[in-house]
Amino acid sequence: MPNPTAAMLVIGDEILSGRTRDANMHYLAGQLTETGIDLKEVRVVSDDRDAIVAAVQGLARAFTHVFTSGGIGPTHDDITADCIAAAFDTPIDVRADARAILQAHYDKAGQELNTARLRMARIPDGATLIDNPVSAAPGFILQNVHVMAGVPAIFQAMVASVLPTLTGGAPLLSRSLRVVRGEGDIAGPLGDFAARHPDLSVGSYPFQKDGIYGSNVVVRGSDALVLDAAMDELAGLFAA
Amino acid sequence: MPNPTAAMLVIGDEILSGRTRDANMHYLAGQLTETGIDLKEVRVVSDDRDAIVAAVQGLARAFTHVFTSGGIGPTHDDITADCIAAAFDTPIDVRADARAILQAHYDKAGQELNTARLRMARIPDGATLIDNPVSAAPGFILQNVHVMAGVPAIFQAMVASVLPTLTGGAPLLSRSLRVVRGEGDIAGPLGDFAARHPDLSVGSYPFQKDGIYGSNVVVRGSDALVLDAAMDELAGLFAA
Repeated sequence: MPNPTAAMLVIGDEILSGRTRDANMHYLAGQLTETGIDLKEVRVVSDDRDAIVAAVQGLARAFTHVFTSGGIGPTHDDITADCIAAAFDTPIDVRADARAILQAHYDKAGQELNTARLRMARIPDGATLIDNPVSAAPGFILQNVHVMAGVPAIFQAMVASVLPTLTGGAPLLSRSLRVVRGEGDIAGPLGDFAARHPDLSVGSYPFQKDGIYGSNVVVRGSDALVLDAAMDELAGLFAA
Repeated sequence: MPNPTAAMLVIGDEILSGRTRDANMHYLAGQLTETGIDLKEVRVVSDDRDAIVAAVQGLARAFTHVFTSGGIGPTHDDITADCIAAAFDTPIDVRADARAILQAHYDKAGQELNTARLRMARIPDGATLIDNPVSAAPGFILQNVHVMAGVPAIFQAMVASVLPTLTGGAPLLSRSLRVVRGEGDIAGPLGDFAARHPDLSVGSYPFQKDGIYGSNVVVRGSDALVLDAAMDELAGLFAA
């Protein structure tokens, strides 16, 4: 059976303006690979209602799971929760369970649960909350969309609580071989090798360092024995 | 007049598997902001023909410019050029001008222009070549799509030769104010401030460092005087 598929939606003007370098994509990609869920697409869109709604609808239809990051804080530019509700035509309001979590958090901190902070308790009807052990304000899951914070420490904590609940396939294993020859020299035999192993994914990632041209050939598959045998074959092909 | 818009398409399994952390998105985002072209969306897709063709068609229709990175090398997994040709229903073959560039490069290096390397001279009919001062194999421009290499040094060199040929709008300027108060405390007045300045983009990016909660408030606009006046107002609102 093929692995479940996933897409990620990164929401945030700060990434698209070049102000911030996104860190969540790389983190989630690694975690999903270990879990055996195939990340097929990532989209980054701005804090724009139409763009977010269209992306959520398109990705939720096309993939088993969707993971979003960003836009669930208390400020005026945090519109993700309302967009997710709109994407699924679901009512949204301050929900008692989320409000109670925030109330307890701010009571403990001696801070007021004001109107702005209360926005973080806006949760679509029927959604399941995602625990936020860092700063309390929860994420949520609506249908196949997992809505998480953009701050990397919180995003990672939410991923940690979500992934164990999902059923993955066989984790994708990878092996790599560093070949100190130009890609153009190895491309022919490498293409033949890939054609002989349709069950494996074979990629070539060129590097250039201190004037030396080479390539890291990466082979991926879910069966360790098959992978090891293929790597032996590959090493034979490109022995120095 | 509003600025031209842009989208970026990153092509590569190695990003989606978490093996490699993409660097080109952040670089291009910064360069486009300086040029006055608004980056509206980034997509990352795998080395899959259908996914690449669909993304190119969708993005080329929706935005003024599209920039792609990755998949134009000599190996079997480099399928970008053929996908771009398919997306625009344009014939593609080894083209004499691209072949001459490669021939000169490999002659000089004393290497053979073999079948694999010759694949890098496959250029769609009617496309304009993009110079590659690093490793010769050119990128190309077909209609509004700019096709560039994935290796960061080459990608950056290609961006440098492409951007001066594009007409940007007024570069987006940004100013930021570091406010050492929780986002929930500043969200109310900040939302009012944003509503008073519909011509400016106002974002709040929370941080958390050594137990201190705060936010970097970033205001963007194209008029330096308007921006400076707004920042004075903002500083007055959140004076410590």
